[in-house]
Amino acid sequence: MKELIYNRHLLPVAERFASKPAVFDGPYVATYSEHAERVLRLADGLRGELGVERGDRFAVMALNGHHYLELFHAGFLGAGVINPLNLRLAPKELAFILGDSETKVCFVDAPFAPLIDRVRKEAGIEKVVLVGEGDAPHDLTHEDVIAAGKAVVPDEPEEEDAVVLMYTGGTTGLPKGVLLDQRAEMLNMYHVAVRWGLDETFVYLHQTPMFHAASMGGTLGIPASGGVSTFVPMFEPKAVLDAIEQHQVTMTVMVPTMIGMLLSHPDFKPERLASLEVLTYGASPMPTPLLEQLLAMFPDMGIYQGYGMTESSAVLTSLGPEEHRKGGELLRSAGRPLSGVVVSIQDAEGNVLPPGETGEVCARAGNFMREYWKRPKETKEAFHGGWYHTGDAGYVDEQGYLFLVDRVKDMIVTGGENVYSAEVESAISSHAAVEQVAVIGIPDERWGEAVHAVIVCKEGTTATEDEIREHVRDRIAGYKIPKSVEFRDEPLPLSGAMKVLKRDLRAPYWEGKERAVQ
Amino acid sequence: MKELIYNRHLLPVAERFASKPAVFDGPYVATYSEHAERVLRLADGLRGELGVERGDRFAVMALNGHHYLELFHAGFLGAGVINPLNLRLAPKELAFILGDSETKVCFVDAPFAPLIDRVRKEAGIEKVVLVGEGDAPHDLTHEDVIAAGKAVVPDEPEEEDAVVLMYTGGTTGLPKGVLLDQRAEMLNMYHVAVRWGLDETFVYLHQTPMFHAASMGGTLGIPASGGVSTFVPMFEPKAVLDAIEQHQVTMTVMVPTMIGMLLSHPDFKPERLASLEVLTYGASPMPTPLLEQLLAMFPDMGIYQGYGMTESSAVLTSLGPEEHRKGGELLRSAGRPLSGVVVSIQDAEGNVLPPGETGEVCARAGNFMREYWKRPKETKEAFHGGWYHTGDAGYVDEQGYLFLVDRVKDMIVTGGENVYSAEVESAISSHAAVEQVAVIGIPDERWGEAVHAVIVCKEGTTATEDEIREHVRDRIAGYKIPKSVEFRDEPLPLSGAMKVLKRDLRAPYWEGKERAVQ
Repeated sequence: MKELIYNRHLLPVAERFASKPAVFDGPYVATYSEHAERVLRLADGLRGELGVERGDRFAVMALNGHHYLELFHAGFLGAGVINPLNLRLAPKELAFILGDSETKVCFVDAPFAPLIDRVRKEAGIEKVVLVGEGDAPHDLTHEDVIAAGKAVVPDEPEEEDAVVLMYTGGTTGLPKGVLLDQRAEMLNMYHVAVRWGLDETFVYLHQTPMFHAASMGGTLGIPASGGVSTFVPMFEPKAVLDAIEQHQVTMTVMVPTMIGMLLSHPDFKPERLASLEVLTYGASPMPTPLLEQLLAMFPDMGIYQGYGMTESSAVLTSLGPEEHRKGGELLRSAGRPLSGVVVSIQDAEGNVLPPGETGEVCARAGNFMREYWKRPKETKEAFHGGWYHTGDAGYVDEQGYLFLVDRVKDMIVTGGENVYSAEVESAISSHAAVEQVAVIGIPDERWGEAVHAVIVCKEGTTATEDEIREHVRDRIAGYKIPKSVEFRDEPLPLSGAMKVLKRDLRAPYWEGKERAVQ
Repeated sequence: MKELIYNRHLLPVAERFASKPAVFDGPYVATYSEHAERVLRLADGLRGELGVERGDRFAVMALNGHHYLELFHAGFLGAGVINPLNLRLAPKELAFILGDSETKVCFVDAPFAPLIDRVRKEAGIEKVVLVGEGDAPHDLTHEDVIAAGKAVVPDEPEEEDAVVLMYTGGTTGLPKGVLLDQRAEMLNMYHVAVRWGLDETFVYLHQTPMFHAASMGGTLGIPASGGVSTFVPMFEPKAVLDAIEQHQVTMTVMVPTMIGMLLSHPDFKPERLASLEVLTYGASPMPTPLLEQLLAMFPDMGIYQGYGMTESSAVLTSLGPEEHRKGGELLRSAGRPLSGVVVSIQDAEGNVLPPGETGEVCARAGNFMREYWKRPKETKEAFHGGWYHTGDAGYVDEQGYLFLVDRVKDMIVTGGENVYSAEVESAISSHAAVEQVAVIGIPDERWGEAVHAVIVCKEGTTATEDEIREHVRDRIAGYKIPKSVEFRDEPLPLSGAMKVLKRDLRAPYWEGKERAVQ
């Protein structure tokens, strides 16, 4: 079918708002008709000049900017499957992803061109296209491709056409390609457009990286509603404050760390964010004191939390402004499912658990991926029983609010009891000497698994195993207290998404043994 | 696919808002969990007690009320295809529709039970189910069906499952059944939910008849968003004013005639509508003075015009509050396409016409019907060239605003010129003596068609053919002036939707001849 496709949205809107600004990017400005013309030319150039046919992948490794927006839109108009690359990827991962995705064309900006140049041979990249300003190795430029293309409306794609191949972070092994089609992306766009009330008055600032699924609502939804898209190349508090003020930004998406950095920056004054009507945060838990500070500072701002993942491209549940105002326990919730999304908490056998009981968060929605690219086994597992299994442990309360507890894989099963590592970490991290902590399950002959804590102390402080155990004794049940504690001097290993790589911490303990939960 | 289906919306919302009111209907009140339980039982009873299998039709002939809402929701949960009957149908039309749709089960309320009883044999109705209070012939009651059913969640329907069979009015021959599936209804629901910003704070008043496509946005969208549904059995100004005040209604849909009657009612005071945040009107053109009066009286109300048809279930374009505030020419516009809808103006050969040129309004959208029931030829014609042909003549301006000019079938082709009957009628109706006027094309040997006016004068007034022609001479071009004028004492024949049946007026002139535009 041809209905849930992006050109049914972008093209009529570009016609309707022809002379209205679509993009502000530093000195670059484009009206809707200018943006649409560049996108149509780019789509045509991708096909003609670069030989990217419908279904072929093309990669992008670049900071945020209007070029990135154009590449997403060109892909969605039927010019291929965009493979947006995480900017933190190591050369080996990069080569793996480019090879695994069979990508022949890579768009890259000057800061990342040397990296692509280094891996292009191993990765099988045939053409490197330079995006934006700067001097760097390339075969042709983004502007060359646009100049070579004609502004013709391409044949309409089908809604089952793949359109995004996004690789997920490496906390659970090799990166996996998440293949999303027009339909999934359009349904997520509808869901968030309903939730946020998108219309042509919106001015959206891209500050989270555009390669990340959290950006997709803005990347697609804003131009489909006639709003303005604006950018900072990457998050930097001063640049964000300036951009919000200069463009009178009305909406943005941030991760909690960014919000913290913004509020504590010397240039920050609350009135500099006066234009912001909608602020969505997500991707990691928001510390309650920070959230309370934000709410107190901006009593009229529409603050939303979003929970989702690349596989759902992206939003499943949302905590809205009214719920934030209620405060209390609710601030720890990930909210309730968006219209069109069904969430269910299930045990390992697929039984639906009642409110209050913790199990795996499962969901059904039209915005889920079609498959893990070339991984039918993993795809089948992820959707077994007709539900997508998020791998997150959580519960819903009587009112349907979702509370996330832990990653299922990080849950420790000790003596038949489930211990959620996040809860133990939270108890330990309140100890004054603790800088970083990760709690993992290690093999134990008697208990199956034993709770084990890995701690990095703040510079100039120390703590002992007994002190830590004593500290948490009043805070958590006895069976949750670590049986062993290990102190390290080096920072804990982090993924590209800044999450501790517990898999790496567990690995030496489990060598030659099999964990029940893989 | 199973994603764009109503139970993915209603059931999780009913769980989430379990103890929140879902329905107020006079003394009847239901929370979401109560409403959902009744709907599940009704769906089960429809299948078990009444033998209505997935895909089978069941009809409803009833005034507005919670029963009607329950029947729509039960059908959408997979219990059959609802066939909502126009309450103005004559017995012959009714028998035709019930027979054509092969409907065996008919839900009816007391006021319409005698009518159904009269046609049931001819129509082949096997079971008549009485809805609501009152004494009337029936086989069993709505409450019997609910009592017989179990509150079990049925197997999920597919999104291609037919769910509504709605017969369109008779202005163009025998009524045609418009067959709509889950997907079309869900996409219209998304489109209007985005446009209106539906959420759980909405209190919606059903006052337009629930058998009409214009009600579908409210019937499906409000309960899918956690809002409150409330009802008047049928439009009556005092009842509407009371209901708005009593339930603090925030949104309703009206036709312009209703708005006029409401504002001129002796009980009307603007403050009685103070709770109304969203008022949508449509189905017929709104006289500009009435619209200006409304806008002046309610400067903060969100006033929307919607344009659409049963076949698009229902909304294609919308004129929003900001555009109403701009006033002037824009007030005559039907607005711009909703996100997800593409509109194009085409000539008879299917060429797309530029802004400003009048042609047939064509559209593409996910919310269109699957087919005219058992009429493949009409279905093919309606969608020829990949566009739905609305039969309306209109143009879009440079900003994409749609202006409707006439029904294509009512357009008169005289000496190679197109004359839009609506324009001539507008010129004639400004004559002081004119109560009703219809302008039609009649056969003419020289000009192909000639412009002919049929006029009913106001009581106690008269006019002559020459006076009418003199009156319009400064108002319209010479070729648009009626060649002949006919005065009648009887009111002009009207359709169920209160439109003049021009087909009936034309018939005697065209007997044995073929009109170019049928």
